[in-house]
Amino acid sequence: MNKTFFSSLCLAVAVLTPFNMAYAETKPEHGEYRDWRLLGVSLRHDKNSIRAIVGNHVAINAARAGKIKPWPDGSIIAKIKWGERKHPNWEQATVPGEFTAAEAMVKDSKKYAETGGWGFGIWEGKTLKMLDQEKSAPCFACHLPMKDSDYVYTLPNLQ
Amino acid sequence: MNKTFFSSLCLAVAVLTPFNMAYAETKPEHGEYRDWRLLGVSLRHDKNSIRAIVGNHVAINAARAGKIKPWPDGSIIAKIKWGERKHPNWEQATVPGEFTAAEAMVKDSKKYAETGGWGFGIWEGKTLKMLDQEKSAPCFACHLPMKDSDYVYTLPNLQ
Repeated sequence: MNKTFFSSLCLAVAVLTPFNMAYAETKPEHGEYRDWRLLGVSLRHDKNSIRAIVGNHVAINAARAGKIKPWPDGSIIAKIKWGERKHPNWEQATVPGEFTAAEAMVKDSKKYAETGGWGFGIWEGKTLKMLDQEKSAPCFACHLPMKDSDYVYTLPNLQ
Repeated sequence: MNKTFFSSLCLAVAVLTPFNMAYAETKPEHGEYRDWRLLGVSLRHDKNSIRAIVGNHVAINAARAGKIKPWPDGSIIAKIKWGERKHPNWEQATVPGEFTAAEAMVKDSKKYAETGGWGFGIWEGKTLKMLDQEKSAPCFACHLPMKDSDYVYTLPNLQ
């Protein structure tokens, strides 16, 4: 590597890094859930995490009709997670900090019969990647206490 | 009032009250904000209140473009409020309890020039009722610390 190239590379890193870091902090790439409508919100004190729960149109229509025991095939419920932080101008308010992840439950009673009819996935940028059955097992285990609500913790709030 | 009519009335009250109470608890009538997309969520510990903040398409487009200093005329930001409660199956989670109110900030820099360009309103069922200038004054006073963010507490989270 010659010195001129190395200097240019260092300069490029110095110039670009703050921009990229700022971009990563304020502009994560979001999936289609960004345009979905709201089902609920929650704060997990045991995870220091604040969440919004949104649904695709199948899930929203089912929730509004009160037909979610079971949720119909085609429903997708997305959980958008941020770390919690105090609002900088109102310290008694907890608001979203850094974006953590967006996860999905996808209802297909045949395809995902082994895990209550739900497939579990996570968005990687704009793409929803579904977990295989082995990796879905711990997700499903955590949802077992909600069996009477078709394994869904969210109790829809905007019927 | 004759006895037959009185008995019928009591029966009607007995039959209808549980239904109406259940309906009131689970199905408040919501305004158009129910179909708007998400800007943020918050928990106000000083109010024991959990909130979702959504915006009309003008507000959402502005937030995603990062053009919210100031928010453009036509923006409407809705704050949907519930009392907080523990999730019945996960006690370390705070989730919405009873619906409290849905309030709005409506941007019209000329019409609401006296209150930072924002009009303040509250949904009564499906109808958004705007407050007069006198009743808006305390709302605006509470938003003054956010002057550098065009008087809006919500820092949009899904750009």
